[in-house]
Amino acid sequence: MQQLFEKEVYVERRHILKKAIGKGIILLTGNADSPMNYTDNYYPFRQDSSFLYYFGLDIPGLVGIIDVEKDVEAIYGKEADLEDVIWTGPMPTLQELAAQVGISMVSPLKEVAAFLQSAIHHKTAIHTLPFYRADNKLRVSSWLQMPIDLVERYISVPLIKAVVAQREVKQAVEIAEIDKAASISAEMHVAAMQFARPGMYEYEIAAKMEYVALAAAGRLSYPTILTINGQTLHNHYHGHKIQKGHMVLADAGAENVMHYAGDLTRTFPVDTVFTASQRDVYNVVLTSFEAAVAALKPGVAFKDIHRLACVKLLEGLKNLGIIRGDVEAAVEKSVHTLFFQCGLGHMMGLDVHDMENLGEAYVGYTDAILQRNEFGWKSLRLGKPLSAGFVLTVEPGIYFIPQLIDSWKAQNKLGDFINYEQLENYRFSGGIRIEDNFLITPTGARLLGQPLAKTVQEIEEMRYAARYQA
Amino acid sequence: MQQLFEKEVYVERRHILKKAIGKGIILLTGNADSPMNYTDNYYPFRQDSSFLYYFGLDIPGLVGIIDVEKDVEAIYGKEADLEDVIWTGPMPTLQELAAQVGISMVSPLKEVAAFLQSAIHHKTAIHTLPFYRADNKLRVSSWLQMPIDLVERYISVPLIKAVVAQREVKQAVEIAEIDKAASISAEMHVAAMQFARPGMYEYEIAAKMEYVALAAAGRLSYPTILTINGQTLHNHYHGHKIQKGHMVLADAGAENVMHYAGDLTRTFPVDTVFTASQRDVYNVVLTSFEAAVAALKPGVAFKDIHRLACVKLLEGLKNLGIIRGDVEAAVEKSVHTLFFQCGLGHMMGLDVHDMENLGEAYVGYTDAILQRNEFGWKSLRLGKPLSAGFVLTVEPGIYFIPQLIDSWKAQNKLGDFINYEQLENYRFSGGIRIEDNFLITPTGARLLGQPLAKTVQEIEEMRYAARYQA
Repeated sequence: MQQLFEKEVYVERRHILKKAIGKGIILLTGNADSPMNYTDNYYPFRQDSSFLYYFGLDIPGLVGIIDVEKDVEAIYGKEADLEDVIWTGPMPTLQELAAQVGISMVSPLKEVAAFLQSAIHHKTAIHTLPFYRADNKLRVSSWLQMPIDLVERYISVPLIKAVVAQREVKQAVEIAEIDKAASISAEMHVAAMQFARPGMYEYEIAAKMEYVALAAAGRLSYPTILTINGQTLHNHYHGHKIQKGHMVLADAGAENVMHYAGDLTRTFPVDTVFTASQRDVYNVVLTSFEAAVAALKPGVAFKDIHRLACVKLLEGLKNLGIIRGDVEAAVEKSVHTLFFQCGLGHMMGLDVHDMENLGEAYVGYTDAILQRNEFGWKSLRLGKPLSAGFVLTVEPGIYFIPQLIDSWKAQNKLGDFINYEQLENYRFSGGIRIEDNFLITPTGARLLGQPLAKTVQEIEEMRYAARYQA
Repeated sequence: MQQLFEKEVYVERRHILKKAIGKGIILLTGNADSPMNYTDNYYPFRQDSSFLYYFGLDIPGLVGIIDVEKDVEAIYGKEADLEDVIWTGPMPTLQELAAQVGISMVSPLKEVAAFLQSAIHHKTAIHTLPFYRADNKLRVSSWLQMPIDLVERYISVPLIKAVVAQREVKQAVEIAEIDKAASISAEMHVAAMQFARPGMYEYEIAAKMEYVALAAAGRLSYPTILTINGQTLHNHYHGHKIQKGHMVLADAGAENVMHYAGDLTRTFPVDTVFTASQRDVYNVVLTSFEAAVAALKPGVAFKDIHRLACVKLLEGLKNLGIIRGDVEAAVEKSVHTLFFQCGLGHMMGLDVHDMENLGEAYVGYTDAILQRNEFGWKSLRLGKPLSAGFVLTVEPGIYFIPQLIDSWKAQNKLGDFINYEQLENYRFSGGIRIEDNFLITPTGARLLGQPLAKTVQEIEEMRYAARYQA
């Protein structure tokens, strides 16, 4: 399902990258097929996102090379022969493919080794990005004829910084794609809320959501979380039967045809209505969500919006009698991390955690604003000041994790702030998260994708309508 | 969705393996998570099939070790800590997990390196299986403190042969699972035949099929082929609009919860009926299919059944005027490979091409019956005599590949047998394949899974009913 932007988009992106790097050779290794249970039974192909960004071609086994000084851009790959045509159908030539992204020079893949070795021989700097797939690391190691551990020396901080600076500010054509991905994601959640009935298994609802992504020529942008145990932050078990009284936390999104991600979370009751205590906690999360969204604008550091969201969560929990004392002071002491162990949000784009393989230090922080390493704060992927063109998630939550509560309670940790007795009443209340996707605009932020039911009333109406329409 | 057989199943399997190997250490490396577009965004976990067979546990990052002489069996892995509980929920201990498959000894994963190095130091043989994932090869290389290229010396032919001898004869508990997987696969095809309408895109129908697998708590056992270009053997492009006059070839199957595969193909008209010429070719394939199925029984070499199927295909094409002369002689000259470029079938089990990573020389052939390496024959994955307990596919087809026809016609290749003029009338007739799954029984073969519409009449009835019911 290869789809591309206009070739000028890629030409311009590479032009900016070359200017930023100045000299040397940029090596962007496209992904190969990823074996599942034997070599030729592979997972759905996913091109590397940086390769997609600069070279566009959604085909396994390509390599993109930019010789900055000589201003030469080339795609290395393997031409299809008659045997390939029999098995995989007629294919355009490499030349035809490369032309679609504004590149005229193509070479057989087997020549990439000689090219790179010659560069090393001539002491030309090679810039590449961190490896996240072992096979790519092995390929580069073999091209360079170098032990596997040594290839990491070619991971280039200047290249990482240049790529982050480009990819973090989304172009109009990209925003349009993320908008589509977020809308497909919203349809996935509508399908879940309309479909779920007491007595179903979690996997049945997860399947319905994935179907919506597939039927839109997309796929999941990440493994779906669909669980009655929303307090488990990355829960990919889908084997429980859902029953009245449970809430379902669904964190799922689509990657659209152009490989841009959506990432939405909703928490809804298996019954048509929330219980009173579920509604109370839900509204605490919603208030925090709305305060965070209202604070989004260029120049504000996301770590400060995270802190604001935490204050709002504790204010709400104070109203429920779980927290006492000054909430600002409580956040200073990280009291919120008993309930909100993770971060408020992250960058989004071609990756659902955009550019995560390039390192959070570069994507989410700056040389001046460093990631904190205490529990809770260390899971905040984004801290730096926002700029227009950033796309990110806002996803506060409250998670009652019995094991964590027990661990803190045993030490009476932060007992001045936490009413552990009252907390016991919420021990099995699970987890609630609300998550939407936003574009930072020059003056604030804009929701991406079609709006999706979010208030208690909207969600209960959707659950009620679904129940009595089927 | 961890599910297991009774622990005695695994104990017995390992017991047989130990007896077959006699001495040394057996190292079975379980799979880790496989990164998609960055390290922590991974594909759905798929355990290694041999690890599943002997150690059962469907969890990433485990290693199974059997010290044959000392009769010690151990699972190496990482215990969950509180941080893991927060992110992935409460987990049983390694000890509890191992006990489910009859193993009492567990060790921290980091100790596997010392254990293996000590074995090497004591000149104890280490037996392992071929690598198909680069990360596993890297892990073993790091445990052994050995350059990546040298770890292949531990790939053990005795272990491969012992594993093949066990896994190729399916146990009753396994047959029950393959039966379920084949039935889910049949439901996928029913869904496609009921759902497909002129004007839809291929991916919409592929999505509907995958949904059936997911909603049964399963997944695809291999990437779906769903195409109006059935002549392209491994066609994973799903971007065409289907129209009246086209046929849809759907080759798709489910992997069930226990990770056993189904693998079915049907070819159906986008209209409610086949055209006359489509029906003619379809019936040629069906006649070949039925002859092959009737020939399945213990002791018969599958290569001879493949040959029988080829004879039947050419007989049918002779009736259509495409082939002339003696069809037995034509098969001897490989005339059939212009229309049937691949093999009649393959083993099935935990892998859809069962044990393909262990090598076709062992899985599909014997020391006496070797795989032929000419075009067509080299793609026959299974040639050896059948035994009761084998599970395999039968999947003859006719594929009109314009580029291949042109290449042969230009040389008038085998012109005594091929009426190229008449063949031109079928040039754009695409491809037709019919595929079912069979268990070899003591006296013949049994279809696995619920029967699925297969004759022209059955398929047209299903297409007609779907059209007028919606």
